[in-house]
Amino acid sequence: MINLVKNLSVYNRRTKSSVIRELLKLTNQPGIISLAGGLPAPDLFPVETMREVVNSVLDKYSAAALQYGATEGTPELKAELVKLLKETEGLDLKPENILITTASQQGLDLIGKTFIDASDPILVELPSYIGGLQAFKSYGAEMIGVKCDDDGLLLENLELKLQKLLEEEEHYKFIYVVPDFQNPSGVTMSQKRREQLIKMSEKYDVLIIEDSPYRQIRFEGKAPDMLYKLDKSSNVISVFTFSKIFVPGLRLGFMIGHEEIIKKLSKMKQSLDLCTSPFNQLIAAEFLKGGYLPSHIEKINASYKSKKDAMLNALQEYMPKVEGISWTKPEGGLFLWLRLPEHIDTEVLFYEAIKKQVAFVIGSAFYCDKTGNNTMRLNFSYPSEEQIDEGIKRLALVVKKFL
Amino acid sequence: MINLVKNLSVYNRRTKSSVIRELLKLTNQPGIISLAGGLPAPDLFPVETMREVVNSVLDKYSAAALQYGATEGTPELKAELVKLLKETEGLDLKPENILITTASQQGLDLIGKTFIDASDPILVELPSYIGGLQAFKSYGAEMIGVKCDDDGLLLENLELKLQKLLEEEEHYKFIYVVPDFQNPSGVTMSQKRREQLIKMSEKYDVLIIEDSPYRQIRFEGKAPDMLYKLDKSSNVISVFTFSKIFVPGLRLGFMIGHEEIIKKLSKMKQSLDLCTSPFNQLIAAEFLKGGYLPSHIEKINASYKSKKDAMLNALQEYMPKVEGISWTKPEGGLFLWLRLPEHIDTEVLFYEAIKKQVAFVIGSAFYCDKTGNNTMRLNFSYPSEEQIDEGIKRLALVVKKFL
Repeated sequence: MINLVKNLSVYNRRTKSSVIRELLKLTNQPGIISLAGGLPAPDLFPVETMREVVNSVLDKYSAAALQYGATEGTPELKAELVKLLKETEGLDLKPENILITTASQQGLDLIGKTFIDASDPILVELPSYIGGLQAFKSYGAEMIGVKCDDDGLLLENLELKLQKLLEEEEHYKFIYVVPDFQNPSGVTMSQKRREQLIKMSEKYDVLIIEDSPYRQIRFEGKAPDMLYKLDKSSNVISVFTFSKIFVPGLRLGFMIGHEEIIKKLSKMKQSLDLCTSPFNQLIAAEFLKGGYLPSHIEKINASYKSKKDAMLNALQEYMPKVEGISWTKPEGGLFLWLRLPEHIDTEVLFYEAIKKQVAFVIGSAFYCDKTGNNTMRLNFSYPSEEQIDEGIKRLALVVKKFL
Repeated sequence: MINLVKNLSVYNRRTKSSVIRELLKLTNQPGIISLAGGLPAPDLFPVETMREVVNSVLDKYSAAALQYGATEGTPELKAELVKLLKETEGLDLKPENILITTASQQGLDLIGKTFIDASDPILVELPSYIGGLQAFKSYGAEMIGVKCDDDGLLLENLELKLQKLLEEEEHYKFIYVVPDFQNPSGVTMSQKRREQLIKMSEKYDVLIIEDSPYRQIRFEGKAPDMLYKLDKSSNVISVFTFSKIFVPGLRLGFMIGHEEIIKKLSKMKQSLDLCTSPFNQLIAAEFLKGGYLPSHIEKINASYKSKKDAMLNALQEYMPKVEGISWTKPEGGLFLWLRLPEHIDTEVLFYEAIKKQVAFVIGSAFYCDKTGNNTMRLNFSYPSEEQIDEGIKRLALVVKKFL
């Protein structure tokens, strides 16, 4: 074989098997309660609706459902999405504002490929979604972390970073945010912060990437406006997925933006996979057209709310009541965020937790600046309520040992 | 909006809407017989088998078919592919030698992402598959064209290019070939050339990418061995797709290679789309397990052979019998290649052909060195035999005008 190391691209060599992946391997042992994953609950997947919808696609479209399709996406799905985003978000879109993607991870990769040259700075949240960081890093992006609190991005910190980049004559490419029930923190950006962020994007002439996989998974409280809706300057690209509101197994997502931006993204998609599965797109279109989405989302939200409450109750009951231990109280999504006193390193704690048969994701994995050592991500969508209760009980015992 | 030009990546700016795309737009006008496309014939798609198979997947796997899956691919499909490649190609593979991809275009993109840094030279055929060139170019590859004849790659020319690169202290990354019924030329690399190419890969310590979308679409003649089979040094990566032997609409393909290489490719796939649709993978696995593939391929081959013969007959009947006009006689695949006298520019001829209501793809689009102006690609899989006859008749009239 060729000398692999000498023939790999720089990026491949620099991508280490991440700590998180190595740690996740340990969580698959029998008996372990995993609060580490990020999977939706499969018992909620609409298997029988799926069967109906698939058969209906084959009836209606026959061979045409199985042919290659347009890179931009099939017109049937785009038409349904225009309607959906009008009804649910008040957005006025044309089909030309939409690009269908092979799930939202491809959307993030496309953004990298479209905008990033090696060493270009981009601004990301502290903490931020790993899949986004990974995609942008693969094009050589330089990550600049921006501090967050329980209302999302701290705008003063963002402005400080933007000014510094301007002074250094650096060409920042975009600000990447997950404004609703963020992965990993579960935090939602407040309406006020959103309005300020949009102003900032105008002042500093910078694109905003609004990654929105969880927005529809809201159990309680009122949704702030989408950044896309607040923006009047076409400075926002929003990225969505069907993974959390329908099923992940179709690998289907979409992005919206100004027509000219969508054209540029679409040109890049051509060399990635020519087009997203037209069969899967028609399945989703049929699912939307059949009106199955609202009741399905209701079902998901009822289940996840109950699990989230179970986790909050367990944290309240079992976690030691000491200074420095706190957690977020998300109104939706799949995750919450636990902060421990600063001297505790959750990577060290992780191995102890595995011994006690409970797993989580270490917080530092989500920080581009390698901070956040005292934090962890907890998932409540996948485990049962019993597992959540028992898992948090075990975790609390481990935390006590580290105090 | 931000200034788009100033914010795009270098690659996005350098990717022009290709001549071929612009020309293809003209071929959609009513009345035009298009020999330009590259689509499989949809009337051959096994719609009812698809329905059976999909329902069986939902019966057997239920919600598990709709969840996220492993980046490397689902074990069920890999197991079927190990069997298939043993039976049809005599390959001894383990599941670890296989990576499932979102069709073969993603395979090509992954190869680019895994091996290419900007300005790295790679060696490609003259002419070569556009989708491959596009994917490699997106990582900044420098294309070095190698001459071909009707037996495939000219090895002396390849060696010359390799030696020159060595002298220049350039680090060539791989040789990219489509050895069976090449797109665009329809040429198959002979057994002897294949053996020589494998020797060359050892001598020059260089990886070979064997792109193999059409290999099973053989109507006549005996298949030479796969490069993968001839190689004893793990220097070959082979890329396959289900698009031509099943349906393109699932966007499903796979690649095979040494276990260590597959690991490196897999690491890159993570940030592209996390995993290929497990639902679609299980559909393909069920199709293979059900034993539907051999008879389906037989049906395709019978139809395409008949269409290929119709095209050869029409060329024989209508094309002017003059020095410099020749065409390939493929034993399989979807395309053949027409060469005209050197003074004829098929891009100029194209507009005249459109006036006469027939379309093709200009040959120069497939040449990385911008030669091949007197050539064109003709597709016989999509049009009917009547359209092929009439289309070639019209084309011959245009060619006569240019002589």
